[in-house]
Amino acid sequence: MKAAIINVTGYGGAELARILAGHPELEVAAATGRSGAGRRLAEIFPHLSPVDLDITDEFEGEADVVFSALPHAASAEKVLPLLERGARVVDFSADFRLKDALAYREWYRIDHPSPGHLADAAYGLPELNREEVRSSRLVANPGCYPTAAVLALAPAVSGSLITGDIIIDAKSGVSGAGRGLSLTTHYSEVNDSLRAYSVAGHRHMPEITQELERINPGPDLRITLLTHLVPMTRGILVSCYAPLNPDVVGTGAGAAATITEAYADHYREEPFVEVVAEPPSTKQTLGSNRCCVYPTVDLRTNRLMAIACIDNLVKGAAGQAVQNANLMLGLEETSGLGQLAVYP
Amino acid sequence: MKAAIINVTGYGGAELARILAGHPELEVAAATGRSGAGRRLAEIFPHLSPVDLDITDEFEGEADVVFSALPHAASAEKVLPLLERGARVVDFSADFRLKDALAYREWYRIDHPSPGHLADAAYGLPELNREEVRSSRLVANPGCYPTAAVLALAPAVSGSLITGDIIIDAKSGVSGAGRGLSLTTHYSEVNDSLRAYSVAGHRHMPEITQELERINPGPDLRITLLTHLVPMTRGILVSCYAPLNPDVVGTGAGAAATITEAYADHYREEPFVEVVAEPPSTKQTLGSNRCCVYPTVDLRTNRLMAIACIDNLVKGAAGQAVQNANLMLGLEETSGLGQLAVYP
Amino acid sequence: MKAAIINVTGYGGAELARILAGHPELEVAAATGRSGAGRRLAEIFPHLSPVDLDITDEFEGEADVVFSALPHAASAEKVLPLLERGARVVDFSADFRLKDALAYREWYRIDHPSPGHLADAAYGLPELNREEVRSSRLVANPGCYPTAAVLALAPAVSGSLITGDIIIDAKSGVSGAGRGLSLTTHYSEVNDSLRAYSVAGHRHMPEITQELERINPGPDLRITLLTHLVPMTRGILVSCYAPLNPDVVGTGAGAAATITEAYADHYREEPFVEVVAEPPSTKQTLGSNRCCVYPTVDLRTNRLMAIACIDNLVKGAAGQAVQNANLMLGLEETSGLGQLAVYP
Amino acid sequence: MKAAIINVTGYGGAELARILAGHPELEVAAATGRSGAGRRLAEIFPHLSPVDLDITDEFEGEADVVFSALPHAASAEKVLPLLERGARVVDFSADFRLKDALAYREWYRIDHPSPGHLADAAYGLPELNREEVRSSRLVANPGCYPTAAVLALAPAVSGSLITGDIIIDAKSGVSGAGRGLSLTTHYSEVNDSLRAYSVAGHRHMPEITQELERINPGPDLRITLLTHLVPMTRGILVSCYAPLNPDVVGTGAGAAATITEAYADHYREEPFVEVVAEPPSTKQTLGSNRCCVYPTVDLRTNRLMAIACIDNLVKGAAGQAVQNANLMLGLEETSGLGQLAVYP
Repeated sequence: MKAAIINVTGYGGAELARILAGHPELEVAAATGRSGAGRRLAEIFPHLSPVDLDITDEFEGEADVVFSALPHAASAEKVLPLLERGARVVDFSADFRLKDALAYREWYRIDHPSPGHLADAAYGLPELNREEVRSSRLVANPGCYPTAAVLALAPAVSGSLITGDIIIDAKSGVSGAGRGLSLTTHYSEVNDSLRAYSVAGHRHMPEITQELERINPGPDLRITLLTHLVPMTRGILVSCYAPLNPDVVGTGAGAAATITEAYADHYREEPFVEVVAEPPSTKQTLGSNRCCVYPTVDLRTNRLMAIACIDNLVKGAAGQAVQNANLMLGLEETSGLGQLAVYP
Repeated sequence: MKAAIINVTGYGGAELARILAGHPELEVAAATGRSGAGRRLAEIFPHLSPVDLDITDEFEGEADVVFSALPHAASAEKVLPLLERGARVVDFSADFRLKDALAYREWYRIDHPSPGHLADAAYGLPELNREEVRSSRLVANPGCYPTAAVLALAPAVSGSLITGDIIIDAKSGVSGAGRGLSLTTHYSEVNDSLRAYSVAGHRHMPEITQELERINPGPDLRITLLTHLVPMTRGILVSCYAPLNPDVVGTGAGAAATITEAYADHYREEPFVEVVAEPPSTKQTLGSNRCCVYPTVDLRTNRLMAIACIDNLVKGAAGQAVQNANLMLGLEETSGLGQLAVYP
Repeated sequence: MKAAIINVTGYGGAELARILAGHPELEVAAATGRSGAGRRLAEIFPHLSPVDLDITDEFEGEADVVFSALPHAASAEKVLPLLERGARVVDFSADFRLKDALAYREWYRIDHPSPGHLADAAYGLPELNREEVRSSRLVANPGCYPTAAVLALAPAVSGSLITGDIIIDAKSGVSGAGRGLSLTTHYSEVNDSLRAYSVAGHRHMPEITQELERINPGPDLRITLLTHLVPMTRGILVSCYAPLNPDVVGTGAGAAATITEAYADHYREEPFVEVVAEPPSTKQTLGSNRCCVYPTVDLRTNRLMAIACIDNLVKGAAGQAVQNANLMLGLEETSGLGQLAVYP
Repeated sequence: MKAAIINVTGYGGAELARILAGHPELEVAAATGRSGAGRRLAEIFPHLSPVDLDITDEFEGEADVVFSALPHAASAEKVLPLLERGARVVDFSADFRLKDALAYREWYRIDHPSPGHLADAAYGLPELNREEVRSSRLVANPGCYPTAAVLALAPAVSGSLITGDIIIDAKSGVSGAGRGLSLTTHYSEVNDSLRAYSVAGHRHMPEITQELERINPGPDLRITLLTHLVPMTRGILVSCYAPLNPDVVGTGAGAAATITEAYADHYREEPFVEVVAEPPSTKQTLGSNRCCVYPTVDLRTNRLMAIACIDNLVKGAAGQAVQNANLMLGLEETSGLGQLAVYP
């Protein structure tokens, strides 16, 4: 089958090219770039030298699936005509993640270009919405933080094991900020240092609320998300805190055991989510599509502490996109995604 | 005046030697080392080559102040005879931080060697206990996490601006783990990666509770502390979350303004605490005795988010020790501590 | 076909397990560990969790190829009985790399345990000795520095394009020092810093001389190798300097063109060596079996500057071992080694 | 005495502000910025918050010494009128380093704006040209690479201990590239990776030749300089290689002892150069004005290997500028420069 990549010249697009180079059933037939049109992909990303791919200005051919790795707004603009032509699309941007056009406007400060498509788009977190993804022609690939945060919290929210007073302390490597130039990603400013950012609210926030509410519309969610920039290239780790719901799980050691079991049950069949027995290190996921989830209980306060980590460019972007495409195309969900993490 | 350093061969001791080398009134007269006795300090720490200091096995002379940079238990053992001989002591270890010998036993798994001294020791966070430090002969230098966490929360707790449901998500560079060898500090295991640790409870926890309760015995504190290891050498950043107390601060933008003002007022006269207008980066404190505090409000949930960062080896250890010694000796509190951060 | 890994619990062994997990024709049937016997591999290396492998104390079964990832001396001891039993062996250690038992004694400070095998062992740098590897039952996997240095210099030495006055300034990431504990690999000592080490001579030196002399016994080689430790986990980059041989290549721009062409010709058919047009970054090879070679000429002095980089754990260890095993077993040389670098 | 800083908003200027904040005799009276005019310095560099300094557009007052931290060409333009007005100037740029206007044109691709001043300017490496600096009104502050390389080689060149066939393999942290934005300094591109750059020739090359030739006009120098970018913020380490001159030093162990002694003698009185007994780590110099020099001999080839390291922003820029200013103003050479390195 044939895939096209729109905007292969960012980190998300390049990572997609890397993963698809090892996919047994999906071949990249075309790749466009906002910069770099007319050049070979390897001129921009030498590590992709074995991938013989020319970057074109526009995608005009046919493909079984089109991946758009453009930023929001720019993505919808390119994707809408493709949808008209009947293409299957996996969109890396935020354009089709939120069901509510008003929320989109609130967080992205523009009117949604095509609110009519919001209802049709599947939110592409297969662990939540597998069947919806399978039958959809437009899949909104989740943000990197929501992928980690929702997977960290889903079993607890789903079973009403916690109340809705949730704190998500999220930490990301620098590649999440993309390949663009700013002091934010300047080596000398970032290296050997740590800081919080987007303290007034990160745009990934409404996705998290939306998806957790879909899992369990019951409790009133009051979520605080604070994001931090960590001096590492890849990796996201979220530490989530919420009071246990004593009516459901009790308290103390018994509650801890219940939590552990609930998480293990919830993810038992998932190929890419592993409930781990020790606090995971982000590097355990480097280059792989794996999400490690570690639930535990602060016995002194009867709070859930749920930690999850992913590679933000794989499970948080390109790998998850391939996982979604596999589902949409009727392929094995894990096809092309077998790579183990590169450690250390 | 003369100072002695017990155990100069760890990172805390070496940092103390660095700071005291620039102190106009305190001179290092003697330094002992658990390893390295009989060698020059510069053989172990070449960056201290201009400091001409021999490492001895035991300290037997006189000094106006003795700094003990030994770990807990070992420190009390060395320090107690010195106290008997009338010395002033600043102790880097946890041995005299907790007022409650049972809490010490619970967290450190040994009986306290000298519970009688606990009442006399001052907890050496000058921003809280300045006068007590001035008049004390035994000062327990706070842990690095408690220094950052208590300074982040003190204005809010002091004014009852928040409830007692506090989450402290703490992140530290690797030097906090010391110079000892373990996989935990192995470069290839740590670099470019992030993880939580001590998930069952970090030993710095009871100090935080103790000091916040002293500030305001009113509210019932339910504190969760989770610590993370960040791939950087120095620096601690804590992100603290707690519900606003609406009776005191109201909600929304008004509450945010009240918070900002309360923090500014609280630290206006402090030489080493700065309430900053942007989320601080740990590197802003590298090598300096400064603590940056950034309070803000999550307007969607009416929660305080208070961030603080320090250099764990300076304000979190050796710098604070000098600050305490200055107070004990009647010197200017800032003496020898004027160094700006080395940035970038 | 079946493979066994002796000492899977170091970085070389773990990387081998990672690579073999994706090999279509070689399956790991057994793995031993100096530590960790009786445990699952994933307990020690959580990133290998999908590889379901138990660590045993000794290898006693049958295998088509045995990889020994033990250090020198320990490796020969384990490998010799296996050779007696007829096994094919790829040895990661230095035990069978040098043809000269006296050189082994000089550099490794012990008598060689089995000098009789030195002549039979193939030096497993396929780009030099492909046919010898194919027909050998004992392959000495090269050191990481020699792999990079010999590949950087082979075209120039082979064609007598340079004189024998060679300087090799070599830089390595920290994983090359292994998983053992020492201040050398302590994060706080290494991070954000750079230094030279083994200034009196690195043990990889005699391999480099031996192999370059085999390529061209003509010139008298006077090689200086100086190694440096770089604050990064993986990657080796060597910068090699040598005077051009003006009788062969002339001088100036013409010489530069001749050099470029000679390198391109030399490696045209090689699947894992790429002559690149820009100075390569080590990260271009991360996790892949690729070697990037960049030859250029310092026109002011008519010296060759030849740069090469590899991932020290892949082309510098486990990947090259698989490449050798593929040749020994009659498989496609590139089988299981298609993974692209993980960048950024 | 009063100092002015022209262009305080780059890393060189900011580091100068940090150092001068601790200078007992020099006070910053004015600071200009290419960006940031009208703002407080602490808005751009929060770590300088205790320095109460407003950034102005132009410097129009009086000062005992003016430091220009502008890039080449821009610096000469600002500095020339100040010289006319009689100011003492320390220029961080390359504009007055080369005595030969043609060399300037060759390397910087522009005509020198004021060739008449080249003869008057002192090359501000005090260890070479102390008296010239003392009596000069215009001092060209050396480049960071030349500072390290010339200090590494000066004793050997001075005593004709080596021939002129010199290889300088130089490695720098990223702050040397400044605060400007480019993929070259993008965290995700640089982190955990290493590469060579400016392979066709680095602009610091002619300074090195010029100064070594001034030390000893005898030998014909054939210098190759290759620069590398290392994933660390600060620090330069150069590894220099040259054949010993057997007529002068002999060969073997005797030559090594002669070399060591010659270096020790050469730098015995220098306050900022230390000949060290172990290969130095760049971090030993972090934040300090120190240069560590480590000479040794490759006994197999009778080549000198001389290593030197500095903090590129201190001894390689702002610290050396203060050292020069101290000399020009008749102050103690070490005044304000006593800070020890911040390690680890």
